[in-house]
Amino acid sequence: MASEFELIRRHFTLPTRNTRLGVGDDAALLVPRPGMELVVTSDMLVSGTHFFADTDPVDLGWKTLAVNVSDIAAMGAEPRWAFLAIALPAADEAWIAGLAKGFAECAERFSIDLAGGDTTRGPLTLSVTLIGEVAAGRAVRRDGAKPGEDLWVTGTPGQATLGLAHLRGELALPADTAAICVAALHRPQPRVEAGLALNGIATAMLDVSDGLLGDLGHILERSGVGAEVELDCLPHALTGECAIAGDRMQDTTLRGGDDYELLFTAPTSQRGVITRLSGDLGLPFTRIGVISNDARVITLIDSQGTRTRTSALGYDHFRA
Amino acid sequence: MASEFELIRRHFTLPTRNTRLGVGDDAALLVPRPGMELVVTSDMLVSGTHFFADTDPVDLGWKTLAVNVSDIAAMGAEPRWAFLAIALPAADEAWIAGLAKGFAECAERFSIDLAGGDTTRGPLTLSVTLIGEVAAGRAVRRDGAKPGEDLWVTGTPGQATLGLAHLRGELALPADTAAICVAALHRPQPRVEAGLALNGIATAMLDVSDGLLGDLGHILERSGVGAEVELDCLPHALTGECAIAGDRMQDTTLRGGDDYELLFTAPTSQRGVITRLSGDLGLPFTRIGVISNDARVITLIDSQGTRTRTSALGYDHFRA
Repeated sequence: MASEFELIRRHFTLPTRNTRLGVGDDAALLVPRPGMELVVTSDMLVSGTHFFADTDPVDLGWKTLAVNVSDIAAMGAEPRWAFLAIALPAADEAWIAGLAKGFAECAERFSIDLAGGDTTRGPLTLSVTLIGEVAAGRAVRRDGAKPGEDLWVTGTPGQATLGLAHLRGELALPADTAAICVAALHRPQPRVEAGLALNGIATAMLDVSDGLLGDLGHILERSGVGAEVELDCLPHALTGECAIAGDRMQDTTLRGGDDYELLFTAPTSQRGVITRLSGDLGLPFTRIGVISNDARVITLIDSQGTRTRTSALGYDHFRA
Repeated sequence: MASEFELIRRHFTLPTRNTRLGVGDDAALLVPRPGMELVVTSDMLVSGTHFFADTDPVDLGWKTLAVNVSDIAAMGAEPRWAFLAIALPAADEAWIAGLAKGFAECAERFSIDLAGGDTTRGPLTLSVTLIGEVAAGRAVRRDGAKPGEDLWVTGTPGQATLGLAHLRGELALPADTAAICVAALHRPQPRVEAGLALNGIATAMLDVSDGLLGDLGHILERSGVGAEVELDCLPHALTGECAIAGDRMQDTTLRGGDDYELLFTAPTSQRGVITRLSGDLGLPFTRIGVISNDARVITLIDSQGTRTRTSALGYDHFRA
């Protein structure tokens, strides 16, 4: 019977297009394009902490790469080369083949080469390092937001949280809505095209993996500014017949994690450009507020004009 | 009490010199030097598989980075940027501070920036991705060995195995020899300077992490050649009064792992240059055999001229 090492080698040897030398030497050789800067992110996913041991391996393979792709997208950069280190308790070919299938689907979708990695025996752990490229000096960081700029978000944050609630039986959604929300949870779509299109337009950007308010706090912290959020402008994942109670919906949109939408700031002069981009990409871009001088303070404004101030720091935490 | 995430942030925020943007954004930003190719390696170390839970954390921090540095050295390249993902079961400030100290010492020794990473809760696992640079097209790969070339090794492979045997009480070494061997085990010195000096001289190279014969097999496999090893030429870690039985010594030198010396091939015309390099670096370079046409076959030749043929494939295995 094949060992887990042989199985990983068999299933994870994927075709590469932009790699001079992949698996099989001491290290991989990559040729960055002239004038480009490297954008690098690492994420470690541990069984029992980030996913359940019985998660569909195809979904897990997709998501393991996708969460890293989202970080590259949030810099306005293009993902290029992935490195995957795996610790596995035992050989299970069907499971490994599934993981490889999902990973390969995500790599193919975003033209990423799996250029190297490591396999070892141990408690199930997946660690990806993803290298992207962006024109030198053009990365969209978290520290560029300025007072008076608009605050925008892509898509409808909260979908993944609703998908999880549905799977747990805490919420009964119509089948088609449930399918969309569960897909957001298991097959997140990193906003690479949107991130690239926003490069040169957005002044600060990040992905909303930890919830909209929590991640907004990171922009405020790094940029030394505040934000006023118009609650009535929030794009909710559920509307019409399947809407849930207003407070719960709002909380899901503001605090739901695991969504991988982009949150960004841009000058008011760019509103027309951004609206056109939204149409071109077939992805909602919603203006949800403005950047203020009130450093590190998030002010929530409801439909009556009532203002609630909260500290951005309250939402600042390490991803756990 | 500080969480493991705060402790990691506190202790692993090291000064960077060659990184445009390090920890704190969605991804790190690195600026490769013009005309350079990237050399990338990943290693995952799992508690109980690669190290014991009671390993001195300072040594563990050093070795976690050093084993990756060795892979970059073996490509004749320069290590530049490290990414460290850690899964930790609980917060233990003394342990984390020790790990960070050893890691920082190795980073400082080789001028490496810790440019990013991830921290999560889980069974103790350390995953490093290290990015190096080499002039485009100049990396020393495993596939360039040609029949008639010399086979060389740096240092005295087997030291780490002897250090482990000493610690386990299987071998009694004099104190000074024991200290050297235990240091080879716990504080391996990647041969970065030697690797860079050999760039342009060595035709194939790798690091001997899995034992000399096993890793020689990788060169033979990738280059489609064979090798004849002169057993009398092997550089043994123990000589004189502390020598151990000849067979055991030879086996340790040929098969001992965890040493991180460089094994390389070079044309016979380079013998003088290599010998001078050895003197300049203060590191023994020993010519131990020649490359043959006998594809994938290692022939061991003893002092009586007796030849023993073995298949290189017998030693080809995944690092486990």
